[in-house]
Amino acid sequence: MGNYKKLDDKDIAFIKNVIGDEERVLVGENINEEYSHDELGGTSSYPDIVIKVKSAEEISAIMKYAYEQTIPVTPRGSGTGLVGSSVAIKHGIMIDTSLMNQVLELDEENLTITVEPGVLLMELAAYVEEHDFFYPPDPGEKSATIGGNISTNAGGMRAVKYGVTRDYVMGLEVVLPNGEITQFGGKVVKNSSGYDLKDLIIGSEGTLGFITKAILKLLPLPKRVISLLIPFPTLEKAIDTVPEIIKSKAIPTAIEFMQREVIEDAEEYLGKAFPDKQSDAYLLLKFDGNSTEEIEEIYDKVAKLCLEQGALDVLISDTEEREESLWKARGAFLEAIKGSTTYMDEVDMVVPRNRVNEMVTYLHDLQKTVDIRIKSFGHAGDGNLHAYILKDELSDEEWEKRMRNAMELIYRKAHELRGQVSGEHGIGFAKKPYLMESLPEENIRLMNGIKQVFDPKNILNPHKVAQI
Amino acid sequence: MGNYKKLDDKDIAFIKNVIGDEERVLVGENINEEYSHDELGGTSSYPDIVIKVKSAEEISAIMKYAYEQTIPVTPRGSGTGLVGSSVAIKHGIMIDTSLMNQVLELDEENLTITVEPGVLLMELAAYVEEHDFFYPPDPGEKSATIGGNISTNAGGMRAVKYGVTRDYVMGLEVVLPNGEITQFGGKVVKNSSGYDLKDLIIGSEGTLGFITKAILKLLPLPKRVISLLIPFPTLEKAIDTVPEIIKSKAIPTAIEFMQREVIEDAEEYLGKAFPDKQSDAYLLLKFDGNSTEEIEEIYDKVAKLCLEQGALDVLISDTEEREESLWKARGAFLEAIKGSTTYMDEVDMVVPRNRVNEMVTYLHDLQKTVDIRIKSFGHAGDGNLHAYILKDELSDEEWEKRMRNAMELIYRKAHELRGQVSGEHGIGFAKKPYLMESLPEENIRLMNGIKQVFDPKNILNPHKVAQI
Repeated sequence: MGNYKKLDDKDIAFIKNVIGDEERVLVGENINEEYSHDELGGTSSYPDIVIKVKSAEEISAIMKYAYEQTIPVTPRGSGTGLVGSSVAIKHGIMIDTSLMNQVLELDEENLTITVEPGVLLMELAAYVEEHDFFYPPDPGEKSATIGGNISTNAGGMRAVKYGVTRDYVMGLEVVLPNGEITQFGGKVVKNSSGYDLKDLIIGSEGTLGFITKAILKLLPLPKRVISLLIPFPTLEKAIDTVPEIIKSKAIPTAIEFMQREVIEDAEEYLGKAFPDKQSDAYLLLKFDGNSTEEIEEIYDKVAKLCLEQGALDVLISDTEEREESLWKARGAFLEAIKGSTTYMDEVDMVVPRNRVNEMVTYLHDLQKTVDIRIKSFGHAGDGNLHAYILKDELSDEEWEKRMRNAMELIYRKAHELRGQVSGEHGIGFAKKPYLMESLPEENIRLMNGIKQVFDPKNILNPHKVAQI
Repeated sequence: MGNYKKLDDKDIAFIKNVIGDEERVLVGENINEEYSHDELGGTSSYPDIVIKVKSAEEISAIMKYAYEQTIPVTPRGSGTGLVGSSVAIKHGIMIDTSLMNQVLELDEENLTITVEPGVLLMELAAYVEEHDFFYPPDPGEKSATIGGNISTNAGGMRAVKYGVTRDYVMGLEVVLPNGEITQFGGKVVKNSSGYDLKDLIIGSEGTLGFITKAILKLLPLPKRVISLLIPFPTLEKAIDTVPEIIKSKAIPTAIEFMQREVIEDAEEYLGKAFPDKQSDAYLLLKFDGNSTEEIEEIYDKVAKLCLEQGALDVLISDTEEREESLWKARGAFLEAIKGSTTYMDEVDMVVPRNRVNEMVTYLHDLQKTVDIRIKSFGHAGDGNLHAYILKDELSDEEWEKRMRNAMELIYRKAHELRGQVSGEHGIGFAKKPYLMESLPEENIRLMNGIKQVFDPKNILNPHKVAQI
């Protein structure tokens, strides 16, 4: 492993010939700085060449060549990842899918949509809604590609009711590391025909195969959506209410928690006031359904329950304008926190949802123990917390020390609560040590064995996920 | 592969010592004939020893020993499979999980239930309903174990709305072929922490690991259930209506199709008349929800649509008694058809749901072409058809010839319609040649590579699924 061929002029000539369009092949100084890192930027490395592909056949031809020549290949969508999955840490070839952005088919009889990997999440959502359909996964980053979403098994806000990306991928076309094009799954609702290779590709962060087409499952678009913004006297009281909501068997579409300090970051970032000021801690809930009555019955029950549990108020948001101001604030949290400090790193742990409070309290106290600022928000309804560790004015050395210390302690706590390292952002390059520590040795052995079966020459996005 | 050690007295003594209870270890003549085959009986072979295990630790100790000694091990639940997955084709050790039948925990805060693999589907369903929860997967065979259901990714009638077993398995405890006990997944709603080993185990028919515990996701129990029995002038008209129902965006819980001849088999088998006689072809639909009004709106729409499409009538079943008489008949189809002939074999193909009619017409015509009786029924709403090829009074030789011929043609047609070999019964031993033919070579290579990573000595349920 690791004995890769360094890209030379002959390789570049071969690639240019395959693509037949100079503008889609970037070399040397033509490679934009953006291609050397992802959204968080902690992992940084330049590819030797960037190819903006237009078809599975192009990818297949390049993979075949890379396989023969033992040149590493890194797949890339919009580069909105947070853990370095789409960074070419071994240099070589980067394949950018952003031009493969066509919706290929909307099949109303089978409730499926077939798309290329470079379609953006926001484009997909808009397209299906126009046709009165619904693609439920709703990660915060709307400019991510669907290929990237599948590669990290992105979750998002609606997971409480609707599940995650995995639950909506019915079939995949994939280019294997040896260049062969194959299919996993299809337009079938059930499947027990051999091992589930499709789900192995989902969440594998571009290390097992290159996704070139996806058949996604759609639902009818819910006709009515209503949100509740519920201020609580303390964050603890807010989060303690979540298991009670779940136990009440009213299943909201989303249950998010938020704190005043993060809301203030969002207000500053958006230049817009948040619709409520009465508290430091909120739950934000969403309900959807086909009629106002249907939703009303459920949210009435939840509103009463929250008040019984000590909520200060229940603010109903049933106009599009109010809806937008609430969820826009929520959607801006990551960027807003990023804008409030000099640099940051993140933890995307997931714990059983009745342990969220323990985790949030732990994060709060940790700020003192480690002497570093930590901001968090997240999906209270599914146990997926996003914690951001902030550099502020710390020296590089102090930052590195305290951040590592905080991160190790957070992951250890998550493990203790029977959680997992990543709920939706993946492992990539940055989170490998924490994955290794959190999983049984046998699981790591199996993952690396599987990687070797798919990619015996270790050329596709090497040294990511479970690979040292 | 295949150089297994033949079980000797020393091995038997070792196993008896591990188990410490003579009654849970069956050898030689004490092995009931039932253990030599599954429900369909086409694959037949005796194990040398049957062990009725009580814990993961027992399984681990036996697997470790079998691994050292290279003795094949076959996992078995209730033996209700249809493709020979739980038959010890290489003899050796059979591990029967039927005594591992405890519900370990109902966690209302996380909406999960943790069970041992030997819990029967009907026991699980009754247990959760008592507690006002709902485990949606609903395969016809209620006396299957949950371990078996997970191993074949069983689907069942409610897949149209609720998905299949895979969608309800959050975490698994598994004994690996080398005897190590490990965990995949857990009580977390989202997970992007390395490759998805959990979903690889689901549907792998006991060839990659031995399931010893499962954490399952529950839903609130829908408060109201209503069924519609809809007679059509022809089966074609009935099935043609299904994509229209899907397109109308009313999502029923179940959409089944049935024909008079199968209904008559069920009447005879149950000794009870079916509630309607006016037609040869029916759709049976189920709707669920939390209020009568909510369901009414949807089923009204569907009823109108069916009448517009030429349905003869719409019979509403809204009493428990009627519900039971309808679904009991549907549930008895497999046994009823089995009782109507001397022997049979089955095809469990799945096709995109808008291709069901083509398949049903093909099956109908095939009876003449091949000169053999074929009965079918199935899940029109999810494209999963069950076709039964009947031996009747054919000689063994003629049966073998015509059955093989019919089967090959059916699978070829399913492939042409972009379907898959199995929707929910799995591949096991009996369907291997058809799986091999239907999948790209690369997929088979990957599956066998994965098998080798999990089970380098090929001792756990060998020569099943994708393995020659």
